[in-house]
Amino acid sequence: MENIQLKENERIDDLQCKGYKIIQNKEGFCFGMDAVLLSNFCDIKSGSTVVDLGTGTGIIPVLIYAKNNVSKVYGVEIQEEVAEMANRTMKMNNIENDVEILNIDLKNAPEKLGINKFDVVTSNPPYMISGGGLINIKDKKAISRHEITCNLEDIIRVSSKLLKHNGRFFLVHRPNRIVDILCLLRQYKLEPKSIRFVHPKIGKQPNLVLIKSIKASKPELKFEKPLYVYNDDGTYTKEIYEIYGMENIDI
Amino acid sequence: MENIQLKENERIDDLQCKGYKIIQNKEGFCFGMDAVLLSNFCDIKSGSTVVDLGTGTGIIPVLIYAKNNVSKVYGVEIQEEVAEMANRTMKMNNIENDVEILNIDLKNAPEKLGINKFDVVTSNPPYMISGGGLINIKDKKAISRHEITCNLEDIIRVSSKLLKHNGRFFLVHRPNRIVDILCLLRQYKLEPKSIRFVHPKIGKQPNLVLIKSIKASKPELKFEKPLYVYNDDGTYTKEIYEIYGMENIDI
Repeated sequence: MENIQLKENERIDDLQCKGYKIIQNKEGFCFGMDAVLLSNFCDIKSGSTVVDLGTGTGIIPVLIYAKNNVSKVYGVEIQEEVAEMANRTMKMNNIENDVEILNIDLKNAPEKLGINKFDVVTSNPPYMISGGGLINIKDKKAISRHEITCNLEDIIRVSSKLLKHNGRFFLVHRPNRIVDILCLLRQYKLEPKSIRFVHPKIGKQPNLVLIKSIKASKPELKFEKPLYVYNDDGTYTKEIYEIYGMENIDI
Repeated sequence: MENIQLKENERIDDLQCKGYKIIQNKEGFCFGMDAVLLSNFCDIKSGSTVVDLGTGTGIIPVLIYAKNNVSKVYGVEIQEEVAEMANRTMKMNNIENDVEILNIDLKNAPEKLGINKFDVVTSNPPYMISGGGLINIKDKKAISRHEITCNLEDIIRVSSKLLKHNGRFFLVHRPNRIVDILCLLRQYKLEPKSIRFVHPKIGKQPNLVLIKSIKASKPELKFEKPLYVYNDDGTYTKEIYEIYGMENIDI
């Protein structure tokens, strides 16, 4: 491992996955379970080329690289400081040649990276619709949570452009956006093929949805079994431990 | 109760709901749990006018009439024999003045019943896409199960025409049609407002979905808690018994 300099408020977290680590800023947006669940949900063929839109800390590229035999992963991040930090994470893990962080607006990604070219696109985008006056735009976390620099349609349109025919798009989002999501996916020829709802507990409403789409595929949606996060006693379910790949972890 | 004549293969079932009964043909399509769950899912304001599209035995009009203070219910059914049987059910229950069965093609319902006029439309339509050669069109049940005489778009387009501004549309369908359903609802200005998935058991994929839409409403979807039908031991869950309104029933 290279000697990596940490900046103020940064820390290194062990991903408990083949020795990979990640740099995060304690004052910034830290990755959540949604990124881990999305990485686990992706079924990626050997040799695939991947783009992660709005990559943040680079958590999804690192986990996808760790778990799959991919040929190249790009992480696209608009925030300069965040992209620079993600880039140091790749250097720290000695994977900077295979996982490249681009500090660009994702709306320019097709122009920079190419059209109809990639096997896989992933995204864990901002969930909240912007438009109200309640967002503090000086808050560095806001841009990761709210649709300030891009919206859902941008992400879906760009994903469709980047992907090859039959390329795969994996998205995690909030269930209450499901109408927008499914209509936009179909509009941009990313046919939803598989959907999985994540419930905090048995009997509770889902709070996350994982969707796999295939570009230019025929309509045929498969529902996956629901994923429950917590047992009734507040401990994590067996499946969550399996996804995190360990017996005990501070998730 | 009037003296009602049963035809060959017909039987009378007690709905265990305020004394209402229904005539069904043992050789034909008998109502299922989906119709009961849809009737229970509908929240209908006092004095509402209601149309049920593809009403079959008339189960949904009877249950809606029994459970709500509605001013008028129309049941639309294209199959002459089935509509005639549903009509006898209404006479048997002495509700033929309030619940009217129309033996017409639902595509003609707006012309016959009026446009922008109703408070509520309900439908438990055929679930299966037609198009293959595997359907026996002489099978009387086929028309209730397959999109032979109407398809999902017909139902949604007609529902939108029938409903007032802010009128409510309640639909039960299969989860694997959810992309078609949500995109068509939005296309015809029936904004999905509430969605509930029905799972045969905890941990299993849903096999039914209940959706409430409101005409010309703003996008804001609420997920309801999942509904589980069976316990692990194969008995019905408490909620199913509550929906059927009794302690024990042969569902």
